[in-house]
Amino acid sequence: MSLICKMPAATSAVPKIGCVVALAAFTAMPGWAQERFEVRSPGGVVTVTLEVQNGTPTYSVTRLGAEILEPSALGVRFAEGPSFDGGLSLTGTETASFDETWEQVWGEKRNIRNHYNELRATFETEGETTRSMDVVFRVYDDGFGLRYEWPEQDTLGAFEIADELTTFDMAGDPIAWWIPAYGRTHYEYLWRDEPLSALDGNQAVHTPLTMETGDGLYLSIHEAALVDYSSMSLLPMGDGVLKADLAPWGGNDGFTLVRGEAPLVSPWRTMQIADTPGGLIESYQILNLNEPNALEDRSWIEPAKYIGIWWNMHLGDWSWGTGPNHGATTEHAKTYIDFAAEHDLPNVLIEGWNTGWTGRWWGDGVNMNFTEATEDFDLEEVMAYAAERGVNIVGHHETGGAVPNYEAQLEDALALYARHGVPSVKQGYVDFGQGIEHDDAGGVNRGEWHYGQYMVEHDALAREAFARAQIAMNPHEPVKDTGLRRTYPHVMTREGARGQEYNSPGGGGNPVDYTTVLPFTRMLSGPMDFTPGIFDLGPDKAHHTPSTLANQLALYVVIYSPLQMATDLPEHYEANLDAFQFIKDVAVDWDDTRVLNGRIGDYVTIARKERDGEDWYIGSITDEIGRSFEVPLSFLEADREYVAEIYRDGPDADWKTTPLDIEITEALVDASTVMELRLAPGGGQAIRFRPASEEEYETMDEYAPE
Amino acid sequence: MSLICKMPAATSAVPKIGCVVALAAFTAMPGWAQERFEVRSPGGVVTVTLEVQNGTPTYSVTRLGAEILEPSALGVRFAEGPSFDGGLSLTGTETASFDETWEQVWGEKRNIRNHYNELRATFETEGETTRSMDVVFRVYDDGFGLRYEWPEQDTLGAFEIADELTTFDMAGDPIAWWIPAYGRTHYEYLWRDEPLSALDGNQAVHTPLTMETGDGLYLSIHEAALVDYSSMSLLPMGDGVLKADLAPWGGNDGFTLVRGEAPLVSPWRTMQIADTPGGLIESYQILNLNEPNALEDRSWIEPAKYIGIWWNMHLGDWSWGTGPNHGATTEHAKTYIDFAAEHDLPNVLIEGWNTGWTGRWWGDGVNMNFTEATEDFDLEEVMAYAAERGVNIVGHHETGGAVPNYEAQLEDALALYARHGVPSVKQGYVDFGQGIEHDDAGGVNRGEWHYGQYMVEHDALAREAFARAQIAMNPHEPVKDTGLRRTYPHVMTREGARGQEYNSPGGGGNPVDYTTVLPFTRMLSGPMDFTPGIFDLGPDKAHHTPSTLANQLALYVVIYSPLQMATDLPEHYEANLDAFQFIKDVAVDWDDTRVLNGRIGDYVTIARKERDGEDWYIGSITDEIGRSFEVPLSFLEADREYVAEIYRDGPDADWKTTPLDIEITEALVDASTVMELRLAPGGGQAIRFRPASEEEYETMDEYAPE
Repeated sequence: MSLICKMPAATSAVPKIGCVVALAAFTAMPGWAQERFEVRSPGGVVTVTLEVQNGTPTYSVTRLGAEILEPSALGVRFAEGPSFDGGLSLTGTETASFDETWEQVWGEKRNIRNHYNELRATFETEGETTRSMDVVFRVYDDGFGLRYEWPEQDTLGAFEIADELTTFDMAGDPIAWWIPAYGRTHYEYLWRDEPLSALDGNQAVHTPLTMETGDGLYLSIHEAALVDYSSMSLLPMGDGVLKADLAPWGGNDGFTLVRGEAPLVSPWRTMQIADTPGGLIESYQILNLNEPNALEDRSWIEPAKYIGIWWNMHLGDWSWGTGPNHGATTEHAKTYIDFAAEHDLPNVLIEGWNTGWTGRWWGDGVNMNFTEATEDFDLEEVMAYAAERGVNIVGHHETGGAVPNYEAQLEDALALYARHGVPSVKQGYVDFGQGIEHDDAGGVNRGEWHYGQYMVEHDALAREAFARAQIAMNPHEPVKDTGLRRTYPHVMTREGARGQEYNSPGGGGNPVDYTTVLPFTRMLSGPMDFTPGIFDLGPDKAHHTPSTLANQLALYVVIYSPLQMATDLPEHYEANLDAFQFIKDVAVDWDDTRVLNGRIGDYVTIARKERDGEDWYIGSITDEIGRSFEVPLSFLEADREYVAEIYRDGPDADWKTTPLDIEITEALVDASTVMELRLAPGGGQAIRFRPASEEEYETMDEYAPE
Repeated sequence: MSLICKMPAATSAVPKIGCVVALAAFTAMPGWAQERFEVRSPGGVVTVTLEVQNGTPTYSVTRLGAEILEPSALGVRFAEGPSFDGGLSLTGTETASFDETWEQVWGEKRNIRNHYNELRATFETEGETTRSMDVVFRVYDDGFGLRYEWPEQDTLGAFEIADELTTFDMAGDPIAWWIPAYGRTHYEYLWRDEPLSALDGNQAVHTPLTMETGDGLYLSIHEAALVDYSSMSLLPMGDGVLKADLAPWGGNDGFTLVRGEAPLVSPWRTMQIADTPGGLIESYQILNLNEPNALEDRSWIEPAKYIGIWWNMHLGDWSWGTGPNHGATTEHAKTYIDFAAEHDLPNVLIEGWNTGWTGRWWGDGVNMNFTEATEDFDLEEVMAYAAERGVNIVGHHETGGAVPNYEAQLEDALALYARHGVPSVKQGYVDFGQGIEHDDAGGVNRGEWHYGQYMVEHDALAREAFARAQIAMNPHEPVKDTGLRRTYPHVMTREGARGQEYNSPGGGGNPVDYTTVLPFTRMLSGPMDFTPGIFDLGPDKAHHTPSTLANQLALYVVIYSPLQMATDLPEHYEANLDAFQFIKDVAVDWDDTRVLNGRIGDYVTIARKERDGEDWYIGSITDEIGRSFEVPLSFLEADREYVAEIYRDGPDADWKTTPLDIEITEALVDASTVMELRLAPGGGQAIRFRPASEEEYETMDEYAPE
């Protein structure tokens, strides 16, 4: 096959670099043109082919000889007027190449390369009143993104999208790790892994949807830069076809998916592709497809660890609302502040300090008062006590899903926190399946989808208010992460999956392998406030958190979050200060991240280098099966000796029976050391590597496998 | 559960080390005792439990929380007299622990640790005439072996085994890579990978049978030290049960499997278990379960590369038998000798130099004369010509499956070769499905199974004759390897799978992914004379060998053999001496082997260090999908600079269209370098690492990813 390679001006002269190839267009039928365009990624790894046949565009994707997507659909259908659902003319194409390296304000990796080739194709509808739409492809060595753009035009003002036609027609029958996108509720389900074909005729599934192909490639479909639009889930249509399924607005007939007005761009529909499961984690494509940082002053945004008045409520010993066992009392707050000060933990979260936790459990949120403290909580006194001890109080906004009530108080609520120097707020959008309250044009109208456009817009409103108040965000029951933290780095972390709270006595429990699925699925979207660090483990506990102690420590490295909780009660940490030392030491902001091994749902080992420091950390976890790995430390700086502070499962450790068996030891290592990581069933290993002092170098034993 | 841990005297005092645990025996039924014994591997990784209930012993296996084998059957049924098939009394148990490190004469790794805990259980049959049998378990951190031992006893002299009852009852439904064990023929089939359940009701399958469990563990069932017995294949019985299926003696009713005489031990039934596919390759359990080296003088055994008059016969241009295109002429031999001498290749194989290649194709072998040269081949002249040039001639014995004809001439045949200093002989046992000829008690009786006891015994006879003649062996169409090379290191390599010859014009072709399955299946049994190194590649060739040139080079590292052929014609190497340099350089004997990554049937990367030298080599290959890997060079000696001589796929390489696109380049690396290996579809990468000279250290560029 002889290709005519049209080189975009900005790219190198080597054909495989930045080559956007147009095959000769030819007439397939009288009156219809067939056109075909290939875009190859900068390193020649991924190829996207756009083809237009009989007025219908499709795209397909290959990677180094592997067919990834068969010809897949493109287009949208409007509620009114000409739609982009067939009968289209391709009126122009543009190609471009882009290469920059940008710096994350905080994150898993400091410097990220954004290197892609782009194809922009402009389509017009047929008929008298024509509308215009661009389809834009950005093709990376680690995947691709595509989006729709509706430029300003006379024939398209305000519009409603009734359907998005985009499909991903998977070649073959990959294994998919999926959670259901049930109606209005949020993302807290257990992943199941099944061949995609087993999902046919089922409900839609959420993104990121991670898959493993028969060829041993790893893919994940998600979206980037979800703004002014509705979330996309994926509807399995049979034959490997996954169709974009947009959450509708609530309270109407369910057919309005997006309310827009040109000019508008859709979120990017994205696919990451990697040779190994870990390659997905090391891909920053979702961030690359977001806009650059929009905040001029970022000095107030700080990654940090925190403790909080919280786990005791999940244990059932304290309550959120007032009463005999109220958690958020002045006295409890002081105890937590003292503990934080003693152990150099900068932040203390206090949940349930405000009034309005009434009605069903936490109520339906409509009575929440975000500025009024309960009688047993003296806000001013607590804030003063914390400030004296150099500790920050983390704010809390539980909306109960009553968004109008929250929005009405938001400015005041943030002003109160800003006055006290609160660095971040944990928000909650708990509802009970009835959806998000939405006072639409006067009538109260509960039932907006947690991930529909209403919540996407609320998110934007809150994001702006928080930016003005210079307070960081940590929403729970959130809209899924789509990488907006690149643009708005004060949206630091979020929930959006089953956290550790599911291991509480009433939580139903996460299975042992849960945290070995998370890094390859939910975590591909962004940081998660999982809340690791339960020390009070054991089969005799009302909560049987399914992990060893070393596994709990390893989670601080494995599950990335710039706000990371030390979740357990102070007394449980005080009972095991040796192991707690790792939580005190571990970084929360990183210069680099390397995935050393991993198998989705079975195990994963991640190394990260701290930002602005010399230390490296390793976290390694496994499911209910014990494992042994050889791990070369080639990530360490060459010609330098490090002390490895090793927190590993003891010889008798087992999550089921003896989770507290841990060995803490030190040894000298360097970049040429190969460590043997032995993990117990449900176990883990956490290691800190710090440069050795001269004395340590002379006196400490070199690392030797057990 | 509280265990009473009886420590064998030889083991350490730490319970997890060498702990053989006997649970309290209790009476389950009047008159029957239930007994249960646990043996844990030295590192506490693998546990084998022997249980006797109602006179029937079973064994089961777990590994770090994973159930590997459910209770599985033990026993044998004799053709006559009391059998070990139920109604057994356990009359004694013994435990032992063993730890040694031994040195391979040649091999993938110089020093091998043999570290296991052993349980020996003695059983007696019931009734008046009792017979005794031991079941011995050796439990390693990387698997286990079990065998039957029949000590000398009055009630058991000569016997016939009518059935072996051993089963492997797999927990769950692992994926199995299998080839069929069809009747009498040999092992040259394509692997299929399917859930074990898909095999139920099918024919038996060969070992090594490699499997991947749902937990992400990798297992392989095989046997070790196959002597005086019949080969075991595995019959899927449903519900994950794999039953030992012994090849019968030919020519009778097919019910005699083994003819034995006490004292006798069975081969070891083995299972390797690893956390990664590569862990299977790095396990030396099969060798460990063989007896130590039995040859006092090993000085004559030398790993070596060879070329040969062979591939041209597969191409159809020359013939084995005499005629107008006879391959083995004096003139051709001299050309090959000249080429070998020029390129420092020590050995030249010459096939078809002897008389008797008559009848059907190669005949049925009965006319083969192993000492008489054809008219156009002057043996003395060729041998003298080779000796003058410092080249050895590799001998050839094609039996055509006519074993009696071969055995009758064997001493003379070997004497001839010994006189000429022939270092090794390639043997052939080609038959056409009719089985191996066997002149049993006078009447000619074709039809012994290729892997039945008759051939196992012939193997032993030949092995002894070759040892006396001090000539090494390379049998094709052999009995499968079971690690006997530890005991008899002159049995250097063999075929026993589809080699490169299947890529010849009439060969039917190996699929692209074939060589990515081989290392995890066939190669677990031992070295293979695959014959890599085809340079005359391309879609325009009558043979379309499915690989790039770099892939062919990488096979010299990936597929281990101490006798390694440079397979293609001298003129094809002369046309590409740059790439041929790797074949000239690569070692054939190794100090160490590390598997850097791998996925069965998709890709594998192996690093090996040459024996008695400083060089390391990497071979990396992939299937029809191109891939990119990050490979830390942590195996290199620390604080030392190496030159990496890199043979990699060029930017346009593709096995299908452009297999010859190769880039050969050099760069400085050290133990902290992380290389990026980019493999084309059907591609590979071969790298030699040699210590850098001072000048190179100062002038050569450091390695940087493409």
